Order: sequence, then C-alpha cells, then structure tokens
Amino acid sequence: MWPTDPTALELNINQKERPLSWKQQTFLADSAMGAPVYRRVKSLLACNLAFRTAGNHNGIKPWLKPAFISKQRLPLPSQSTVLARSYCQHTAQKGLVFRQMFEPISSTYTYLLADCETREAVLIDPVLEEVERDAKLVKELGLRLLYAANTHCHADHITGTGLLKKVVPGCRSIISKDSGAKADITIQEGDRIEFGRFHLEARATPGHTDGCMTFVLNDHSLAFTGDALLIRGCGRTDFQQGSATRLYKSVHEKIFTLPEWCIVYPAHDYKGMTMSTVDEERRLNPRLTKSMEEFVIIMSNLNLPKPTHIDTAVPANLVCGIQGD
Amino acid sequence: MWPTDPTALELNINQKERPLSWKQQTFLADSAMGAPVYRRVKSLLACNLAFRTAGNHNGIKPWLKPAFISKQRLPLPSQSTVLARSYCQHTAQKGLVFRQMFEPISSTYTYLLADCETREAVLIDPVLEEVERDAKLVKELGLRLLYAANTHCHADHITGTGLLKKVVPGCRSIISKDSGAKADITIQEGDRIEFGRFHLEARATPGHTDGCMTFVLNDHSLAFTGDALLIRGCGRTDFQQGSATRLYKSVHEKIFTLPEWCIVYPAHDYKGMTMSTVDEERRLNPRLTKSMEEFVIIMSNLNLPKPTHIDTAVPANLVCGIQGD
Repeated sequence: MWPTDPTALELNINQKERPLSWKQQTFLADSAMGAPVYRRVKSLLACNLAFRTAGNHNGIKPWLKPAFISKQRLPLPSQSTVLARSYCQHTAQKGLVFRQMFEPISSTYTYLLADCETREAVLIDPVLEEVERDAKLVKELGLRLLYAANTHCHADHITGTGLLKKVVPGCRSIISKDSGAKADITIQEGDRIEFGRFHLEARATPGHTDGCMTFVLNDHSLAFTGDALLIRGCGRTDFQQGSATRLYKSVHEKIFTLPEWCIVYPAHDYKGMTMSTVDEERRLNPRLTKSMEEFVIIMSNLNLPKPTHIDTAVPANLVCGIQGD
Repeated sequence: MWPTDPTALELNINQKERPLSWKQQTFLADSAMGAPVYRRVKSLLACNLAFRTAGNHNGIKPWLKPAFISKQRLPLPSQSTVLARSYCQHTAQKGLVFRQMFEPISSTYTYLLADCETREAVLIDPVLEEVERDAKLVKELGLRLLYAANTHCHADHITGTGLLKKVVPGCRSIISKDSGAKADITIQEGDRIEFGRFHLEARATPGHTDGCMTFVLNDHSLAFTGDALLIRGCGRTDFQQGSATRLYKSVHEKIFTLPEWCIVYPAHDYKGMTMSTVDEERRLNPRLTKSMEEFVIIMSNLNLPKPTHIDTAVPANLVCGIQGD
C-alpha cells in the first residue's frame, strides 16, 4: 500500500545536497522497478491527497514527470531503504499473525502464519523435537492449525509434521509431489496453501532436491525459501537429486524475480541471522551473484561432510516424519 | 497510524453471532486502552475517507458512539488480534530498519535499529564473538552506527561494545550508570538514545542486576527488555545485586504498563522463540503472573548453576568489554 502521508510525495526535484527521505527514495525505487508511476499517482489523486512540491521542476508537473528524468541525478535506493518500506507491512495492515522459531541442533527455522480473523494457521518446516513447543504456541495464540507444510524432504532433521497431525487434530501435512514423499496433500507449482484471507503460493525451486518448494505469501511480501536460497548462501547440491544448474535457475527465475523488498525467510541459518531480502541476496549473495558457470564450480568444490542424520532423517521424512502411532 | 481502508470502520453494531474482524476488534481494543476515539475519527474525517456502517445503531452515529457502549457485548480481543495490528507497524510506515540476530553459545539476541532517512543506527546487546558479523551487516545496509548499548552488565558473555568501538569508528558505548560499569555514555531512567527520527527511552528495570535497563522505542511498539523479562520467564536474581522483589516491581511497573500490543524482544531465549508481546507475558508468564510472594519463592528455589563465564565476563563487561587495543 502506498504511504498516505502527503509529505511522502515531497519530491524536491531541485535538491542537490539534501539527502532524500526514505519515502522519496522508495517512490523512485518503485519507479525503477517498472511499476507504472502514472497509475500510482492517479490512484493517489483519487484519494484526494495533497501533493507538495518544492523548487523548479522544469515545467513538468512533478507528479507526472517520468521517474527516469530525476532518477539519474538521485542516489539509488539502498536495500535498507527498500526494507523499511515493506517490512511486515502486510502484517500490520492485513491481520497476519507471524512468528519465527528456531531449532538449534539443525539450525532450522519454523514459521507460523495465521489469519487473525479466521484463526486459520499454517506451520512451515516444523521440527520433530519442537512439536510440543509449536503446538503450545498455536494453542496459546488461539489458532486453528490447518496445515503443516515442508518446503522439501529434509536430510538434516526429521520433520514435525507427522507428530503434529497427532498432537493437533485436524492438521494435515503438505509436501511437493516431486519430493516423492507421502503426505496428506501433495502440491505442485502454482498450487495454493490457503489459510483464511491469505494464501501461500507454491513455487517449484528444485536444485537442492527435486522437490524443493518456495512458499510465497499472496502479496509477495514474504518468501519462505527452504534450502533453495539461504542468507548469503544456498542449499548444497551434492546429494538427493541435487543439481547446481537447476538450483541456479530456480533462484534466479523464481525468487530473484520477486519484488526486491520481499523478505527472504530461509529454512536455516548458521550465523544467527534471521532474515534477508530479495534485494540483499541479489546484490550480496556470494554464490548466486556469480555466473552459472562460476556457481557450478563453487558448488562442486564445497566438499561438505555427509549430514549426520541423513540416513534416519530422509526415510522418516519420506513418510512425513514420525506418525506418533 | 490508523488503517486507512474505509472497511476498517465497518462496526456492525447490531451483530450478535458474526465474529468481529480483527480490524473491528482492534478499534475496540484501542478504545478500551483509553485512546480518545473521537480524535482518531476526526483525523480520519479530515482525510476524506468514507465511513461504512451497518445495521441499527440506536440513534447514535457509530463513529461518535462511545466504545464502552458496544464493548460490553463484544468479545474481548485476543492477543493474536492485538499482535496483528501492531507487529512492525512502525517499521513499515515510519522508516525503521530492524534486525534481530542470535548468538548461540549464550543464546543472546542482538538487535539492530536504524533510521532509513538519516542512516543512524544503534546496536543493542552485541556479543564479542559476533562483532564481525554485526559490523558487516551495518556496512552492507549502509548504516552509520552511533551507539552500541547494553541493557545491563552481562554475566554470561562478554559484550561486543568495546571491540565495536574499534571496528566501527565513531561508535560509542552506552550502559546504565547504576550498573557501575564504564562506558562512553552512562544513562539513567528517562534518558533517550536518539538515532535519526527515533529514540529509545531508557526505563530502569532493576532486579536481575542493579543496573538493568529496558529500552522502549519512542512509539512504545517495541521493548528490549534485556534479562528483566524473558519469553515466559525472567532473569535470575541470585547474584550481581539480584532481588526478586525489585524485579517483580520493575516488570509490573515499567514493562507490563506498556501497551498490550508492545512487542517484547528479550536479551535471551533458550527455546528458539524470537519474540513475545506485553499482553502474552501478562497472561502467560508462569512466574510473573503470580503474586509477589509466590514469585519470590519461585525465584529462591531455582537452584541454577553458576554461569560458566561469569568470572571472566563480568570484569570485562565492567569496562565495556574487550577494548581491542
């Protein structure tokens, strides 16, 4: 949603020294992203919001001036600017409950999303050892857990989805069809996981495994990237149908094409970081900013040890975890 | 800021069975919290936003009807409702950069806050071992780190403030005067840590230690509670001038008096939880929902082991950590 404060559009076309406010930069960032400026301005006019302009604008009404004219002599928006505009915007304005939880042994993040109005909730990537914690939080927040979804068939931990189905009656497990794993619901590219007024769009992002999915919130503000894209990293591609070229394409075609302000929530982080953005990873990811050829070489030279729990985790995850029976 | 979607004010005064939307509940929650409803409505009218009302409103215009009239027969907002309205609201609308980071050895959370416009930033409770990570993020986000502030003199890890001063020129350390520790700036109850258009209000919350501070964002949307209030817990009170009665009073008088939707970001969590709210802790904290007498008994029976690193951490933290010289 566009900021409704009229001062947000104080463009100061003639400014040279004074730095742009974040709102001003955001306006230009939107323009640079290809959003039709005129359409946005038109909708603002319809809202009867006042425009304030300053200085000489060369005879062009600032609100109809194409963004590229002024953009050339203005600093490009940094990702922190972009971040500020979008961070949890949907949450505040649309009634989304959101929680991030951490499991320290496999450094896995579990995410809880829910609609405040309907109380319908989804858990992404729950971990077996933390099922009690997650189920307790769902209860404390007065939510109705519809689904426990895995971004992929994990190799480093056993999913909590099987046990959650027992602990939380009515909860159904979800995984991609391409994973080859069993679940109550198997999904494919373009399918939607609906909870109340929200949904997660499933995007197939294979490469770490064949069945990797990225779940994108309907307004494209949040992307749960699983092991496809990590913060300044990515999932390994040396087992479980791994393919560096497929992963490279998946990230570039399905994740980096999301809005730059889309927040990236991965399945893991090993350095204590909790989130990133599409913009940050496009600019700063040390692997995925390289060419595909360089990426393939990097991935083939990682020489990572075999995951400790792969021999127990994968068979269990192929049947959606421990069933609790 | 009030939601600008006109449907947010569709109050449905006469409804009996149909559940309230989160927006409707939020409206009443605001009213119940003592916010002057009329003032809010007036500002909305000034924005030329349309009001939509439904049903019989007993001759009272819904937008001027005192909240308590309808509040009696409507369900109270739950904490998940409250959460949804406020979560990161300020971030989206006011240009605050916010990041939470985790240090796994002492399970410490470090927080980065910054103003997108001025780029001025503050770090809360940085950890020595993670200084490189934190400084890198500050640089990547294009921020200017003004302060590295400690909520208190930690006993479980060495603060990163001393080293940050060396690594990030211009950064100054902050701690409370009552901590007895040295820093570039010592603060007291009511002091402000300013960064750009934002500030953190320092609230003295002693009990875990004499010098414990809770830092509250100027709009009361976020509270960095240090070890005074943890998620479903609190800091121990059996060393370093600890006092269960002081801690109980601090939390009840200085933190539980914040708005119920205020997000609680503690210095630690040992179960992988990342945040809570004032409402949740008021209702669900197993220690602080008890009477003071019961709380004192609970705290005196914890029988916790001595922190592993206390003998090295406290002396180092009394001089603001490793100075890097």
